[in-house]
Amino acid sequence: MARALCPGSFDPPTNGHINVIERAARLFDHVVVGILANPGKEPLFTVEEREEMLAEAIAHIDNVEIETFSGLLVDFATERDLSVIVKGLRAVSDFEYELQMAQMNAALSPGLDTIFVTTMPSWAFLSSSLVKQVARYGGSVDGLVPPGVSKALKERFAG
Amino acid sequence: MARALCPGSFDPPTNGHINVIERAARLFDHVVVGILANPGKEPLFTVEEREEMLAEAIAHIDNVEIETFSGLLVDFATERDLSVIVKGLRAVSDFEYELQMAQMNAALSPGLDTIFVTTMPSWAFLSSSLVKQVARYGGSVDGLVPPGVSKALKERFAG
Amino acid sequence: MARALCPGSFDPPTNGHINVIERAARLFDHVVVGILANPGKEPLFTVEEREEMLAEAIAHIDNVEIETFSGLLVDFATERDLSVIVKGLRAVSDFEYELQMAQMNAALSPGLDTIFVTTMPSWAFLSSSLVKQVARYGGSVDGLVPPGVSKALKERFAG
Amino acid sequence: MARALCPGSFDPPTNGHINVIERAARLFDHVVVGILANPGKEPLFTVEEREEMLAEAIAHIDNVEIETFSGLLVDFATERDLSVIVKGLRAVSDFEYELQMAQMNAALSPGLDTIFVTTMPSWAFLSSSLVKQVARYGGSVDGLVPPGVSKALKERFAG
Amino acid sequence: MARALCPGSFDPPTNGHINVIERAARLFDHVVVGILANPGKEPLFTVEEREEMLAEAIAHIDNVEIETFSGLLVDFATERDLSVIVKGLRAVSDFEYELQMAQMNAALSPGLDTIFVTTMPSWAFLSSSLVKQVARYGGSVDGLVPPGVSKALKERFAG
Amino acid sequence: MARALCPGSFDPPTNGHINVIERAARLFDHVVVGILANPGKEPLFTVEEREEMLAEAIAHIDNVEIETFSGLLVDFATERDLSVIVKGLRAVSDFEYELQMAQMNAALSPGLDTIFVTTMPSWAFLSSSLVKQVARYGGSVDGLVPPGVSKALKERFAG
Repeated sequence: MARALCPGSFDPPTNGHINVIERAARLFDHVVVGILANPGKEPLFTVEEREEMLAEAIAHIDNVEIETFSGLLVDFATERDLSVIVKGLRAVSDFEYELQMAQMNAALSPGLDTIFVTTMPSWAFLSSSLVKQVARYGGSVDGLVPPGVSKALKERFAG
Repeated sequence: MARALCPGSFDPPTNGHINVIERAARLFDHVVVGILANPGKEPLFTVEEREEMLAEAIAHIDNVEIETFSGLLVDFATERDLSVIVKGLRAVSDFEYELQMAQMNAALSPGLDTIFVTTMPSWAFLSSSLVKQVARYGGSVDGLVPPGVSKALKERFAG
Repeated sequence: MARALCPGSFDPPTNGHINVIERAARLFDHVVVGILANPGKEPLFTVEEREEMLAEAIAHIDNVEIETFSGLLVDFATERDLSVIVKGLRAVSDFEYELQMAQMNAALSPGLDTIFVTTMPSWAFLSSSLVKQVARYGGSVDGLVPPGVSKALKERFAG
Repeated sequence: MARALCPGSFDPPTNGHINVIERAARLFDHVVVGILANPGKEPLFTVEEREEMLAEAIAHIDNVEIETFSGLLVDFATERDLSVIVKGLRAVSDFEYELQMAQMNAALSPGLDTIFVTTMPSWAFLSSSLVKQVARYGGSVDGLVPPGVSKALKERFAG
Repeated sequence: MARALCPGSFDPPTNGHINVIERAARLFDHVVVGILANPGKEPLFTVEEREEMLAEAIAHIDNVEIETFSGLLVDFATERDLSVIVKGLRAVSDFEYELQMAQMNAALSPGLDTIFVTTMPSWAFLSSSLVKQVARYGGSVDGLVPPGVSKALKERFAG
Repeated sequence: MARALCPGSFDPPTNGHINVIERAARLFDHVVVGILANPGKEPLFTVEEREEMLAEAIAHIDNVEIETFSGLLVDFATERDLSVIVKGLRAVSDFEYELQMAQMNAALSPGLDTIFVTTMPSWAFLSSSLVKQVARYGGSVDGLVPPGVSKALKERFAG
């Protein structure tokens, strides 16, 4: 039976991410949420903080576990015996980038497939970077991110 | 466990269609290929001919069956207890149309999800209508469609 | 002060159309909803039926009137002294077509400007043709179109 | 030396078409403008009328000749020993369709390449169908099409 | 009556920006040009220099004033009682980003609407960053930016 | 006869780049591959290394030479008497950026034309930055880049 991987930076997770994970968990027996620890980028939250926020937000889903990885996505998928990558698509520009990544990953690891779920229209404008930008200037992101993320953002950007 | 639907007109099926069905069959326990019998369009092949061509092309896959439907996709999916629609994405214009359909179907049937697989680059330019256009003027479509389809197209457009 | 034109076929009007008209009415002193009576297409509803459905759906807005026109949009706008066209944008494919029309109209009538409002995410998948397709096969379009339109569609496709 | 083909329906030719042909004639030794005589569509102008309008509009270019063809583009290119197809690109939607055709033609005739020139911004909104639509309702298309085409459109839609 | 906001970095203003402001000034009673003073980016011109260049370029328009803001766009619009944001759209990629911002802003401030005007085809390729890149290497940007901006760019990159 | 320019950063060259150069060399008498030495970016390979890798990969093509340039593309093209720029197009996002550059270059140097060739479907997902990312984490890029580039990447990222 297919085991799925939901990869991302999740810096921080948004309600759009949670929606994708919930849907992957309905489609597949087992889902691994893979947090990418990319040494090149300067994240707002540490990998541990992101893992904690995700764990709280998906506590209601049984067949999902959270792991951290670095290096190549295809290597992580092979090690963990995950045969399908699940990504959310919001817009055309997402689509082109994700298509490029999916085809590169298929070239690197022929047995690994990528599927896309479309983001619900009400989350289509959401992204981690937009959420951070709004929170940085004191805007409210309640309703756009899980409650724990909203609280963490307020603390991070407080005085 | 999720049961999947691969809907389409398949007039005629191409190697791109077969690739999408094969990948759906690897991801899900059971796959139904649904041939849409739309009374409004004038197809080149009858629903029976399309069913026969598909059956021959996917004879090597165990967990797939072929059915014909008319009316609303969401009604067919509900009747057959299919919880996920699998579609292939070739290009940006595909994406926008499919996104619109996926969101309409989610509004009509909240439990029904749509996922997208990306077409292999080597089939990205293929479409049933392009294949028919080439065959109509005597061009060879060998390698672009299953052998039985190529034969049927030659007979249809002969003399 | 700028007087605006919301043109369309409105065959039938959807909640997306009504949302665009409401927003135009907040931005401009006077708004004319222009129903295009294009002799080339075969509509589902007559111009009179569409006018009646629109009138009912926008009865709550003061500064809007409904008119029918045929021929060139720029000629209608000039006759009625309307200096700005207001269109809704849902997707990239909309954008390209509307951009082409806006630039052609600007070439034909240099004083006439076109502005775009983005459709609310929850209506982004809606179109008149999709609504008709769903209603034709007995699907419910309640919540996607004004109540009067939903009723008219049921009657049209009954028995 | 490469001999080029500028194919199209040219029903009627616009200033955008003429601009593409002029640029192809600067890039390649010999250019054939190929008018597609597609039996399936109902054109506004006969192939002969289109050929005459084109001939007048490109009379100032030495290394271009006009021919009519039906059937497959790749067969026509092979017969006339044309090794490169030149197309104009206006917008993203053009791009996707043309990319699909270019890849199909490369699959059918591996030695045949397709190149794209971008339309000048001032013609980017032009298309034969938009020009016909404007002229049909009495709008002026002077400056958008060659003078002979403008005259022919006026005569065609007069009275 | 609607009061409009034309926000941007304007580093430096181009003729495309001026065209959008002129059109906003024809559509609305009062227009505020809001220069974003984003601490994160390293601009070529200071906010004061950008303000001066804009003031000179729009001196011929009566109902426009220029202000500087930092923080959230929606907070600035609320403080100044501006009910509509006016943005120029050049291309599909602009469209997707602007759509995302418009929907986020509508979520943050439900009474605030965003409208788009399409850039004139002759300015469609212009952007502040492209203008800076050309000027940096000694290329002429006369005719692409207001005269004062062209002079300022030459001085900045001289010697 | 037209002399062509294939510009790029080539950091490093991929099989997609080589395919574009080969096709340019079939279309035009003389082709210059122009390596952009942009002082602003931090490349992985020096200009000399990139030149060497390219020279090895195109040693089989007679009518191509390799040069390095900095500053404006249009100035380099004018100096070397190159009348046409040849670029590869992979995706819609490429198209928009390249269209913008082509129109800016046409504004700066009216005699200079830009043409686009479409990348072969099997290289459509390739980019220099993706190749570097894969190689950095030990993934194999054999078959995606020329053999000499694959070797150089392995050495560069080796312990």
